[in-house]
Amino acid sequence: MQKVHAYIADNRERFLEELFEVLRIPSISAQSSHKEDMVCCAEHLAKVLAEAGADTTEVIPTEGNPVVYAEKIISPKAKTVLVYGHYDVMPVDPREEWNTEPFEPTIINNRIYGRGADDDKGQSFMHIKAFEAMCATDSLPCNVKFMLEGEEEIGSPSLYGFCEENKEKLKADIILVSDTSMIGLDTPSITCGLRGLTYMEVEVIGPNKDLHSGLFGGAVANPANVLTRLVASLVDDKGHITIPHFYDKVRELSDAERKAFNEAPFSLDAYKKALDIDDIEGEDGYTTIERTGIRPSLDVNGIWGGYTEEGTKTVIPSRAYAKISMRLVPDQDFEEIGRLFEEHFRNIAPKSVKVNVKFLHGGAPYVSPTNMEAYKAAEKAVEEAFGRKPLPFYSGGSIPIVSGFERILGIKSILIGFGLAEDAIHSPNESYGLAQFDKGLQTIPLFYKHFAK
Amino acid sequence: MQKVHAYIADNRERFLEELFEVLRIPSISAQSSHKEDMVCCAEHLAKVLAEAGADTTEVIPTEGNPVVYAEKIISPKAKTVLVYGHYDVMPVDPREEWNTEPFEPTIINNRIYGRGADDDKGQSFMHIKAFEAMCATDSLPCNVKFMLEGEEEIGSPSLYGFCEENKEKLKADIILVSDTSMIGLDTPSITCGLRGLTYMEVEVIGPNKDLHSGLFGGAVANPANVLTRLVASLVDDKGHITIPHFYDKVRELSDAERKAFNEAPFSLDAYKKALDIDDIEGEDGYTTIERTGIRPSLDVNGIWGGYTEEGTKTVIPSRAYAKISMRLVPDQDFEEIGRLFEEHFRNIAPKSVKVNVKFLHGGAPYVSPTNMEAYKAAEKAVEEAFGRKPLPFYSGGSIPIVSGFERILGIKSILIGFGLAEDAIHSPNESYGLAQFDKGLQTIPLFYKHFAK
Repeated sequence: MQKVHAYIADNRERFLEELFEVLRIPSISAQSSHKEDMVCCAEHLAKVLAEAGADTTEVIPTEGNPVVYAEKIISPKAKTVLVYGHYDVMPVDPREEWNTEPFEPTIINNRIYGRGADDDKGQSFMHIKAFEAMCATDSLPCNVKFMLEGEEEIGSPSLYGFCEENKEKLKADIILVSDTSMIGLDTPSITCGLRGLTYMEVEVIGPNKDLHSGLFGGAVANPANVLTRLVASLVDDKGHITIPHFYDKVRELSDAERKAFNEAPFSLDAYKKALDIDDIEGEDGYTTIERTGIRPSLDVNGIWGGYTEEGTKTVIPSRAYAKISMRLVPDQDFEEIGRLFEEHFRNIAPKSVKVNVKFLHGGAPYVSPTNMEAYKAAEKAVEEAFGRKPLPFYSGGSIPIVSGFERILGIKSILIGFGLAEDAIHSPNESYGLAQFDKGLQTIPLFYKHFAK
Repeated sequence: MQKVHAYIADNRERFLEELFEVLRIPSISAQSSHKEDMVCCAEHLAKVLAEAGADTTEVIPTEGNPVVYAEKIISPKAKTVLVYGHYDVMPVDPREEWNTEPFEPTIINNRIYGRGADDDKGQSFMHIKAFEAMCATDSLPCNVKFMLEGEEEIGSPSLYGFCEENKEKLKADIILVSDTSMIGLDTPSITCGLRGLTYMEVEVIGPNKDLHSGLFGGAVANPANVLTRLVASLVDDKGHITIPHFYDKVRELSDAERKAFNEAPFSLDAYKKALDIDDIEGEDGYTTIERTGIRPSLDVNGIWGGYTEEGTKTVIPSRAYAKISMRLVPDQDFEEIGRLFEEHFRNIAPKSVKVNVKFLHGGAPYVSPTNMEAYKAAEKAVEEAFGRKPLPFYSGGSIPIVSGFERILGIKSILIGFGLAEDAIHSPNESYGLAQFDKGLQTIPLFYKHFAK
């Protein structure tokens, strides 16, 4: 292990330069104008994997963006780790709030700023480089497979089919994922739960054209007003989601489980201060950790309609829109929730408007058991690297494909994420601390060592 | 009068060509990038007025866009008509819904399509050309003054001061305005009431940056969700505006007045069909005509926040916004309503967010009495031109400066508008029928004739 860590230390500057090359590719999966960047990024990563020591690398086309696959088989008898990551990133808007160019990575105060610096190019890249270090020092103790997709941020639409068609190729003992966060560098944690997601878009349609708000105001349903009414009604004043049957399959934790859950260190004052808010808001009867860890939520991710430029325009817009996503917990079914949402939204719409409701994407919640071998190996690895035993942690985020892996491939995932809340993933000024990058590179080979035993 | 009408008929093609030149200038007052177009349009109109027969023309700078002033004094003893109009136009968005170029006027099916074709370039231009026809045929019976401003669509911020400073210059017996609509070409009407306006913008501020909706969703107030809640609560389920004291000064009509008011021809079926809506919506206990004519209203003119592009982004936006305007009726005070709105909005905002509330512009409601001389002259002129006595009509729209004229200059306005609902002013595909243009040109000299007596 000393050789591995020495190799990493000796090559750190080159690793960062190579990561920066990856971060410079604007691989935004949500925007079709970046289609070519996706292919370019996939091909670049295949090259990097080949150079790192993979026996075979492939850029495999799908109906959407290609999957990068690579493997190194040291022995048919050895255990196999399948590393999953994604090379696609979130859009960068609001662009004007970035302090640096989103696709020109810049180190400021020991943090790498740039879209994808953490999520998930930065985290995936540590795996490639840890793999390189083990190969170069002849200390790889397992077979390794890499599967890097380009559609995680849009719900992995092609990867489900890809897994169905490549069950043999993807055979492994565990799927290793670094696409989550830790509580803190001084409070390391391993993610053992992920929320699911149902992402919808609604359109409220009123008159057949924009109207003069003087001539028609007060007499015609204004789609923007109606939209606020409909959306506001989706959550009641106790923070409960009002969609009928929404909570039917929510798994309630026992008092003992809730007590254990709330033992994770959490400072409400620090939380509010970090976000610059005077008060929190959420479902009555649950703590902040519970509200993101074990309870579902409903958020407006975008809303628009009418005149949104400088100055004034006295108009009743013909249409108004919202993107609304719900985070789900075991055992909610994301497709069923989509149907319940659509049915409810149609039911509450007044006759004075028409509505369109679209399901954009979704994924199931996931639980990673703490009693599996891989969890114990990860626990040891993190403890050795961080000097402290990691806590099991329920993340509020979603990686929908992870539950897909279990269903299709029959393989569990271990979620060792090195992100931190301050990384501002999905936000302007996303960053990744060099300390996180270094800790990750240190931890990963230790995981392989313990897992291979 | 025959000579005047003959001159108009002989020069109609040229009139249209000259109108098109004015329509080609993108004089959008709401957008500062069009600053130069405003000056260009004002100077162009001064030239047109000079050519039409004005003795003096001026382009008078203000703190905002210039005012075009022109006059022709035939005798100190003659009555004086002050023609008011505006050369600024509304923004053109949503641009993609236009079937023609907004600033390249195009005649289709006897209608002029283009931004400003009606509001108010088309209507103002009829006055310039009627004036030209009377001058050219030596039949102008009054002194005439023109005041064309470039800020009506943003609330005439500079014209109030301009009037204060130019009381002497603007002395007149009546202000003649064509910036409103008729019920129909077969049901001519004269506008005797205008609603007032208070236009606000609100900003709801949550966390100091956009957040990942998985990691924070359910635990932090989402400004877009909060905005929908706050805005939705401004109107209750009976269509009443919930701002305390909002209705305190609303003048209630007597049963007899309401009966007379509802005698104007109106077909709800035709109304719904024209707008392609299955149902109307408004304040309980009032008819559609009343809802726009004598009752106040509250409309969201624009709403925005978060991710509004293609695809999905799982974000809790840091901020969300809405532009909200209220139409007011006598005797509501637009500044007081602005204060009530702001106070109420601040009161209902939860502690989990901060709010900013801005007053953008406003104006008082206006009543043009049907017993004044100018009304009777207008009634006769319209009856002669249209073959049918016009109905008095309460428009739902606002021309805030009109009540300002009365307050500052002590002069009443007569509102002979030749617009129609189908002109789609403020909307994509604004148009103005050639029949309306012709009727206007025919009516205006008749008004001068009867008013001069």
